[in-house]
Amino acid sequence: MHSNEVASTGWDRVGVAVAGLGSMGLGMAASLLRAGADVTGYDPDPNKREDFAALGGKVAVSSVEASRGATLVVSVVVDAGQTEALLFGDEGIATVMAEDGVFISCATMAPDRARRMAARLEATGRHYLDAPVSGGARRAADGSLTILASGTEQAFARAAPALDAMSATLHRLGEAPGEAAAFKMVNQLLAGVHIAAASEAIAFAAREGLDLHRVYEVITASAGNSWMFENRVPHILDGDYRPLSAVDIFVKDLGIVLDMGRASSFPAPLASAALQLFIMTSAAGMGRDDDSSVARLYARIAGLDLSL
Amino acid sequence: MHSNEVASTGWDRVGVAVAGLGSMGLGMAASLLRAGADVTGYDPDPNKREDFAALGGKVAVSSVEASRGATLVVSVVVDAGQTEALLFGDEGIATVMAEDGVFISCATMAPDRARRMAARLEATGRHYLDAPVSGGARRAADGSLTILASGTEQAFARAAPALDAMSATLHRLGEAPGEAAAFKMVNQLLAGVHIAAASEAIAFAAREGLDLHRVYEVITASAGNSWMFENRVPHILDGDYRPLSAVDIFVKDLGIVLDMGRASSFPAPLASAALQLFIMTSAAGMGRDDDSSVARLYARIAGLDLSL
Repeated sequence: MHSNEVASTGWDRVGVAVAGLGSMGLGMAASLLRAGADVTGYDPDPNKREDFAALGGKVAVSSVEASRGATLVVSVVVDAGQTEALLFGDEGIATVMAEDGVFISCATMAPDRARRMAARLEATGRHYLDAPVSGGARRAADGSLTILASGTEQAFARAAPALDAMSATLHRLGEAPGEAAAFKMVNQLLAGVHIAAASEAIAFAAREGLDLHRVYEVITASAGNSWMFENRVPHILDGDYRPLSAVDIFVKDLGIVLDMGRASSFPAPLASAALQLFIMTSAAGMGRDDDSSVARLYARIAGLDLSL
Repeated sequence: MHSNEVASTGWDRVGVAVAGLGSMGLGMAASLLRAGADVTGYDPDPNKREDFAALGGKVAVSSVEASRGATLVVSVVVDAGQTEALLFGDEGIATVMAEDGVFISCATMAPDRARRMAARLEATGRHYLDAPVSGGARRAADGSLTILASGTEQAFARAAPALDAMSATLHRLGEAPGEAAAFKMVNQLLAGVHIAAASEAIAFAAREGLDLHRVYEVITASAGNSWMFENRVPHILDGDYRPLSAVDIFVKDLGIVLDMGRASSFPAPLASAALQLFIMTSAAGMGRDDDSSVARLYARIAGLDLSL
């Protein structure tokens, strides 16, 4: 069985397709290449295909061509809609992958969407690994992402070399696709609220006339610290809003959190307040800038200069 | 000069009063005792005075008696109002302390209040050290608090042995009383929002049917982590709401943040949303319980069991 070959001989016999060569997908594809995989990349944007070709990767002119016969397909598209189109759209790849192939779905999405797509793919005999990632573009490029994953034993076994190549930390979160998606949404609720809180706090500190470098130093050593405060406030103090992760990602992700809450009758007033702040920031023209741009929104509203 | 004796001979010649022997003040007074100080404690509650006497401390029956001639007075009362009454009320201590004594004010308060009290005390020739603390009762007891402090060179020099005895980390934040208070309020904004966010997130995870121990493990290793998530969620999973720090502390402190914002025309929508959650939790009868009780509010509303 081909699947046993994968498990026993590992990596070099496995055909891997990477669909989506944006800042995350390009780095993940590069990590797979470095690990010795036979990788074919695809992105609708020819510039992104060229980026991957420049790294020595093979590229295809369609996702179907990239995925034909592939044992593993790593999907690094933006959301559930793009994932569904990739798998089951007019040019869907679900039935061109290897018959026992694994679809590794990395987009952040509502658990229900993941469950439904997994069921539909598994009905063809193929495997679905629910595998949202975190860590940003740099960690994608050096193969040190955190991957939250749920799926069957078989899906994990076949995907193992790719997961190893792309991640420093793999959390196995159960057998059912959708579980990992739900863990990711809990993380996104917190991450989004914390970015907005960091923005509110640093602007508040500026209004109070405090030395913002000292604020950073004190808060990161205090009970008010968060991973996001520590990571994002330097962008704000540098005035560098080039997008490592964009405002509109949190418009999407906090939107999913609140949709989930509405569907399950769960109130999430803090996530709701944070979502409104990301929407305001996007509405003010900063949707594609770094998510720490929420601080620029506060600064503009209150007439403050946060960059030092 | 007595003040030079303090600097040169240090500790054993210094009379120290501690006003307020609650969970924080008792531990701080004990840390001072352990360091060899001549400490007299006072609290209006006779049980708290007995607690300190049981640790070997001297107690006085009034704050005036405790503070008479004291070189250092450590004020560990609840808020600006109590601090003002302690210093300048009918039984105020401002003029009974040593003439060059230092008042070390540890309550969290608005910077303006600290500035006004400092000016009034300094007009008598005495010194005011704005010195809010953080770290909780355990770190108070073992002398490892974090102290944020601002004040004159003289105030710092004279207070040094006491600050050393009570803290593991001292942030010197400038010459002007009120600076340290402002840093503390930035921290409290973040801390309050993060406790409420941790509560919302863990209840959301429960609604999604996730294994909450696994959620704790995954989030504390992810970008959604905060100091408060890591510290408070174990209380929630243990169902242990004995107050290490009470809900009503954040009703007070986020109230100060929002008063400051209103006074300076600074909008703080996340702090506002978090404050409402603490008020709701207090209104539901949990004001004196641990601040992680916000999670119990979500659990009650949504019919969830968060303890494992």
